[in-house]
Amino acid sequence: MTELHIEATRGDLVESVHRVSAAVMQADGRLVAAAGDASRVAYWRSAAKPFQALPLLEDGAADALAMTTEELALACASHSSEPRHLEVAAGLLRRIGATEADLACGPHSPISAAVAERVVREGIELTPLWSNCSGKHAGMLALARHHGWPSAGYERPGHPLQDRILTEVAKWTGIRAQAIPIATDGCAAVTFGLPLSAMALAWARFGTDAAPAAARLRAAMSAHPDLVAGTGRLCTELMAALPGRVLAKIGAAGIYCAALPELGVGVALKVADGDSEVSAPALLAVLSAVLQRAGVAARYDFAPVAPHISRPILNTRGARVGTLRAAGGLRFHD
Amino acid sequence: MTELHIEATRGDLVESVHRVSAAVMQADGRLVAAAGDASRVAYWRSAAKPFQALPLLEDGAADALAMTTEELALACASHSSEPRHLEVAAGLLRRIGATEADLACGPHSPISAAVAERVVREGIELTPLWSNCSGKHAGMLALARHHGWPSAGYERPGHPLQDRILTEVAKWTGIRAQAIPIATDGCAAVTFGLPLSAMALAWARFGTDAAPAAARLRAAMSAHPDLVAGTGRLCTELMAALPGRVLAKIGAAGIYCAALPELGVGVALKVADGDSEVSAPALLAVLSAVLQRAGVAARYDFAPVAPHISRPILNTRGARVGTLRAAGGLRFHD
Repeated sequence: MTELHIEATRGDLVESVHRVSAAVMQADGRLVAAAGDASRVAYWRSAAKPFQALPLLEDGAADALAMTTEELALACASHSSEPRHLEVAAGLLRRIGATEADLACGPHSPISAAVAERVVREGIELTPLWSNCSGKHAGMLALARHHGWPSAGYERPGHPLQDRILTEVAKWTGIRAQAIPIATDGCAAVTFGLPLSAMALAWARFGTDAAPAAARLRAAMSAHPDLVAGTGRLCTELMAALPGRVLAKIGAAGIYCAALPELGVGVALKVADGDSEVSAPALLAVLSAVLQRAGVAARYDFAPVAPHISRPILNTRGARVGTLRAAGGLRFHD
Repeated sequence: MTELHIEATRGDLVESVHRVSAAVMQADGRLVAAAGDASRVAYWRSAAKPFQALPLLEDGAADALAMTTEELALACASHSSEPRHLEVAAGLLRRIGATEADLACGPHSPISAAVAERVVREGIELTPLWSNCSGKHAGMLALARHHGWPSAGYERPGHPLQDRILTEVAKWTGIRAQAIPIATDGCAAVTFGLPLSAMALAWARFGTDAAPAAARLRAAMSAHPDLVAGTGRLCTELMAALPGRVLAKIGAAGIYCAALPELGVGVALKVADGDSEVSAPALLAVLSAVLQRAGVAARYDFAPVAPHISRPILNTRGARVGTLRAAGGLRFHD
């Protein structure tokens, strides 16, 4: 079987090919399956967000600040800048006595094409609240307030908040903090260089951990999938279709992570070229292969996310000229 | 030396990698250099446009219809939908007694981000004239008028116009027409599946052919590089910086072709994943390597296109977090 990849066909030929590396791990540290290079080091980008949010629960900040489950879900989000996303982020900022000026994330054209178009059409000025990461940043500010750390520089390496989060990342991934290369994410916060296998392990553990912090964060994401991404996006639709049974989080540059708690499995993948438009079919191909191998595919109905499995490639007249789809498969290690 | 590729760095790591296949050919059919798989079959997409336009000159249509050099340049263009691009296309349609309704190309968000934003902001309705291919389509209609062929279906396989163009493509690439897989391009016209080496051969021949048709089309492209692409784009800036000494044409899905007439060389490359944002640094890496090998790099000043050689990757606060750049090199065969 050829290695998992995403291909774009046109006519009778495969026109373009995206290579994919993936790791599927059990929470006990066993590599279940792989594609490409499962030990490839990549930046975790936004697929790290649950682990950046967990200290809010573990350190008591969420309770002390009366954070809602919506705010917790948004802290894990790469949101689409839809009205509700901005409202929830603004609400958390107000409650902790912070303002948009405290946010270190810069604005960008919204992930939602519809919202992005509305922004241009209505001449809306983009501010940091519009960043897809504004929930994460508001959560970071909340944790800093709770601990009495300064707001200034909260996004940078060496700030106590980032030290706290790095410790959390090390705990879940099993990689020593000193061995994790860090860099600057698109939103100006710290991002973490990790083998895909370590990301997958962290997600397997996150999906199954019995401690209240992980359970509450899973519940928040599952209760508010619309706040973790946005209308029509795979993270949202997958968690809405299979609440609590799939947890999924996209990251920039072709990263996607997920957990299948019932199987005790975590998944991490990277589209080699960093194309985040094709990581959704890659994730669904990996999840499908794992569920099939486990003999439980029939119990996971992916029909609601069918548009993300493959999609027609249309020309400018709306005629179908090809297909974007996954091909090849995983190497299973059992 | 590693194979040519485009890499995006972040911090101390290479975050994403785009593989590149390339062929560098002499007009006599000799493979000068390669990267990846030089015989990879890809669709020629918009890098075929000069060959789709050449029959206008060879068959006497350009003279009979008094086509301007601007119209010939635009027939080779993937334009940015700037005002002058739309004017020239509309002018040609008027002269041949056609209207926008005759154009088979569908509209799409303009390639120029500035124009695309203006379209949304001002609520402009996109019509076929706004297609980046409207010059090519107007040229196709002109050729059909000249030959007395029907306008209807001019973009489809089997129409005499497409048969004529396929013959032209076969002539320049050295591949039998029957052996060329065809498919539907984004603009609804026929596109051609060809080995990169055949595309490069065609461009080498186009760059050096002494016949008046090729010479006039080269002169038109070189005289109006602003009409072949648009403000800030590599095709335009490269041909403006080195008029007549470099001919270059981007195609969709990671295709780029060029000719260096003084060296008798043609180049064709494909970014494997189809990313057209990174084909510009790939082309410049190939051209630089070829010029260096020939010992004439100092005579080709690429300073005006330096922003296309590599570019900083910025976060949403405008801080530099990495670099997009070419790495690795070509395999030379001499």
